[in-house]
Amino acid sequence: MSDFDLKTYLTDRQGRVEAALDALLAEPEPIFTTLRDSMRYSLLAGGKRVRPILCLAAAEACGGDEARAMPAACALELMHSYTLIHDDLPCMDDDDLRRGKPTNHTVYGEAQALLAGNGLFTLAFEIVAKQAIDGGISTEAAARVTHRMATAIGWRGVIGGQSIDIEATGQTIDRRRVETICTHKTAVLIAASVACGAIVAGAPDERVEALDRYGRSIGLAFQVADDVLNVEGDAAALGKGTGTDEAAGKTTFVDVLGLPGARDYAKYLLTDALAALADFDGKAEPLRALARYIVTRDR
Amino acid sequence: MSDFDLKTYLTDRQGRVEAALDALLAEPEPIFTTLRDSMRYSLLAGGKRVRPILCLAAAEACGGDEARAMPAACALELMHSYTLIHDDLPCMDDDDLRRGKPTNHTVYGEAQALLAGNGLFTLAFEIVAKQAIDGGISTEAAARVTHRMATAIGWRGVIGGQSIDIEATGQTIDRRRVETICTHKTAVLIAASVACGAIVAGAPDERVEALDRYGRSIGLAFQVADDVLNVEGDAAALGKGTGTDEAAGKTTFVDVLGLPGARDYAKYLLTDALAALADFDGKAEPLRALARYIVTRDR
Repeated sequence: MSDFDLKTYLTDRQGRVEAALDALLAEPEPIFTTLRDSMRYSLLAGGKRVRPILCLAAAEACGGDEARAMPAACALELMHSYTLIHDDLPCMDDDDLRRGKPTNHTVYGEAQALLAGNGLFTLAFEIVAKQAIDGGISTEAAARVTHRMATAIGWRGVIGGQSIDIEATGQTIDRRRVETICTHKTAVLIAASVACGAIVAGAPDERVEALDRYGRSIGLAFQVADDVLNVEGDAAALGKGTGTDEAAGKTTFVDVLGLPGARDYAKYLLTDALAALADFDGKAEPLRALARYIVTRDR
Repeated sequence: MSDFDLKTYLTDRQGRVEAALDALLAEPEPIFTTLRDSMRYSLLAGGKRVRPILCLAAAEACGGDEARAMPAACALELMHSYTLIHDDLPCMDDDDLRRGKPTNHTVYGEAQALLAGNGLFTLAFEIVAKQAIDGGISTEAAARVTHRMATAIGWRGVIGGQSIDIEATGQTIDRRRVETICTHKTAVLIAASVACGAIVAGAPDERVEALDRYGRSIGLAFQVADDVLNVEGDAAALGKGTGTDEAAGKTTFVDVLGLPGARDYAKYLLTDALAALADFDGKAEPLRALARYIVTRDR
């Protein structure tokens, strides 16, 4: 559907996601002022809101209601924000800047930043459970969403990926290891984002699993495209320095596949993602457009 | 019931909790070996297993089945273990020893220790959701347990308590502030432990709330008794140096109440905890004995 206007779609969803995230920590807090401020600082520091938008788009693709999927969508962004705060800590990547702003620990100190991450993470589980208790989704859907999120972000998912990524830093690793790290650090949470949207929408298992496959493919494609952009991209367009992975001692998809090989692999993953959506109708057009955008973007 | 043998009761429950915790991370792990080892290192490093035992005892007091409460009990210990790993990090309390063993980050490095804490924490939510999906508890009970745990450990609970505790370090704070910090850092998770045991046992709301009150009181009493022991205790019996709080610049209940005042407050809290159990029958005897033990223990 060449008429689909992805830019307007994204701007629109970003606005609603921002408003929902803001509302989570909107109340003044007399006791935990510093913690609340530091949580808000990172959560509301911008970003493309890819995971929540994918969650909402997946719910839509399954005929579900966007408002019902919003708490799960926010939970996924809370988890993403938590991983970024912890990733930036001195004991991890030791970054001073994130999206052009000082990182959380640079502003609030390491201890408060660690706690801000933990606070955002916990809030993710809290809001999904609360929605179920209030009758906004079934408790069965909440259990499935909670389980899917926990396994995705957990020790055999994102956290595991970060662990083996640290171990691999400065080492020569093969293509399979690069893919394992990327799958766990990035793709499983993208996959959980669309799967949770489908679960909240009451989709049957085969739809949930088709979206999981779509999510894994675009999650990998996202990183492959990033690695390609990092080599060929223009520093100004990317908004960060190029060649940063090399400096950090990280092996990229370009390292193990070469530049043409990495480009081809991104295209293959796009084809696979679109194939996973074969049985979906026009309501999945935003998901298709998002997949194409991820592979063809120039920043 | 003066016949109740608390020592045997505790030894028995500790054994079953240890076995259940061990089983959570028993499988060999070909990819995430370091992370799994570091998670096991801290989770299985001993400890009294107070929170899981309280959870099991609360389920029992409400006429519930111990086996059904075991995943929630383990989840509470996973959360406790996560807070200990993070508390020991250099950016927090910077401790090298925990229960006489090198702390997690001393053995595995700060980055892996951070991730081990996060992994244990996530596993807590995963196992409760899994039990519900498998039909071991109702999905409604899982949503309530998840919500209660998340709010207890979250930014207005344990994490918030840690945040204001850090801010208060080296400051002169009043009795109310000492109590606020202790309530959040310690008592809310103890309260959640017994409340979750009651929820899993299918107890009515008034029983859940009575146990919550019991838990808050013994949680505070535990810290008050600890502060008293820290002043009057014998270093050998405690297994750690005395006067450590003073050295760390932390204001204790003894500081704000005096030694006799703190002893009286512990007794008052015990009375309150036992009063909360007034409508419970003999099945709550372990909870009563645990409350008495917390206040009268000498180590």
